[in-house]
Amino acid sequence: MVTGELQIRVRYAECDAMGVVHHSVYPIWFEMGRIELLRGTGTTYKQMEEAGQFLVVAKLEIRYRRPALNDDQLTLRTHCIEVGAAKIRHEYELLRGTEVLAVASSTIGCVDRAGRVCPMPSLLREAIAESGKTSGA
Amino acid sequence: MVTGELQIRVRYAECDAMGVVHHSVYPIWFEMGRIELLRGTGTTYKQMEEAGQFLVVAKLEIRYRRPALNDDQLTLRTHCIEVGAAKIRHEYELLRGTEVLAVASSTIGCVDRAGRVCPMPSLLREAIAESGKTSGA
Amino acid sequence: MVTGELQIRVRYAECDAMGVVHHSVYPIWFEMGRIELLRGTGTTYKQMEEAGQFLVVAKLEIRYRRPALNDDQLTLRTHCIEVGAAKIRHEYELLRGTEVLAVASSTIGCVDRAGRVCPMPSLLREAIAESGKTSGA
Amino acid sequence: MVTGELQIRVRYAECDAMGVVHHSVYPIWFEMGRIELLRGTGTTYKQMEEAGQFLVVAKLEIRYRRPALNDDQLTLRTHCIEVGAAKIRHEYELLRGTEVLAVASSTIGCVDRAGRVCPMPSLLREAIAESGKTSGA
Repeated sequence: MVTGELQIRVRYAECDAMGVVHHSVYPIWFEMGRIELLRGTGTTYKQMEEAGQFLVVAKLEIRYRRPALNDDQLTLRTHCIEVGAAKIRHEYELLRGTEVLAVASSTIGCVDRAGRVCPMPSLLREAIAESGKTSGA
Repeated sequence: MVTGELQIRVRYAECDAMGVVHHSVYPIWFEMGRIELLRGTGTTYKQMEEAGQFLVVAKLEIRYRRPALNDDQLTLRTHCIEVGAAKIRHEYELLRGTEVLAVASSTIGCVDRAGRVCPMPSLLREAIAESGKTSGA
Repeated sequence: MVTGELQIRVRYAECDAMGVVHHSVYPIWFEMGRIELLRGTGTTYKQMEEAGQFLVVAKLEIRYRRPALNDDQLTLRTHCIEVGAAKIRHEYELLRGTEVLAVASSTIGCVDRAGRVCPMPSLLREAIAESGKTSGA
Repeated sequence: MVTGELQIRVRYAECDAMGVVHHSVYPIWFEMGRIELLRGTGTTYKQMEEAGQFLVVAKLEIRYRRPALNDDQLTLRTHCIEVGAAKIRHEYELLRGTEVLAVASSTIGCVDRAGRVCPMPSLLREAIAESGKTSGA
């Protein structure tokens, strides 16, 4: 398993009329978590797109436990828990200090420029596998 | 079961660099679906908030099947499938014509101004129940 | 001058912690106004992009007079006030009933797929000119 | 004049179908710039809101010169150029390295919980004035 941490300062514009972060913002943060996790393996999602490989979310499940508040300093833990031939699965924990605000999981697939489903790039699979070995050492 | 339909024109700003609607936009549409469904029962979510009752998303699950595209004219079907003492469950289908782009489900709870969990307002429960009887007739 | 009107229902997610629409939402609405205005001339912005012509905002000025509130039913008036060889200027009024909530103006240019500045498509210029004659009749 | 710098990593969700940052994102960044500038003076905007003082944008003008791209690492320079009894004026420069992507200016006012215009809090005015003296030394 490969894990990464991202610090997030809640933006004012991310809060709704209840004064808490709107629930639609969490998927944006999770995507940032995936992108930073990938950067840590030595490649970037931007390079993947330039090579014509696009990662798309097929399934997303979020459990919101406590509200995130304006100006909060949060930690997002992103875990890559499975890298298959056709999909990658992640799990997420959003924390304020030691308090868990939300947990989530997602399944992503890979498509080409035309939107056709294609195998997960072997370079990506190897980079994640290699990174997992290193971080698990 | 109470069901409502909402027509949605995809906004340019809702699309990402792949030219498709970003997956974080769907929760915003589902919320619009719930709000319009509630309006159909004769009350509004705005009035609920003015009365100090806030609906919050506790759980959200989305399955993205096909991309929604810029300028698409979509139909969102929102179903209220369970109204309990403490929570309400909805299911959603997002369609372009007869093509299903996404299906989703959510569980929402009710909190007061201080964010404390409170029972679902009986007025809301009755309005939905009454509306269900009418639409099922 | 070509003018169009767009009805906008304020979304919950568009409101910030003050319970009013966040000021960053207005540019999204103005863009919707421009797109609907263009649709009224018989072409669509989507078709322009498919033909490799992209409209980009070069300048935007907004004066916010009164807050737009959650669930408000608003009217956006979009005026195309100048169509030149290289740029198009629009003005906007955002209204709740007869009350003016904001006024704005923008200048947009045209770029190709590579982001190079290019002349405004003559088809677009003619469509707007033709539409202006009709609506001014 | 008080000046602050903020590092911004462009988020994937902030890009539109052209693959560049949507122009409605810039006001969100400028607000972040103002909030961090305020934090640097020893108070926070969050504390102001808790004390019933809300800063609202009255006027915003943006000139977009070059597109910001996905995954760009940007620098936002925020300058507080005038602090009056009723309004504060800021100017902004958005940079990628030494390249200026956009310049902007805004005027903000202060309102109370009921949305009534009120004088700029003297504590805020003094904090900014004091900070200006220090940073100018």
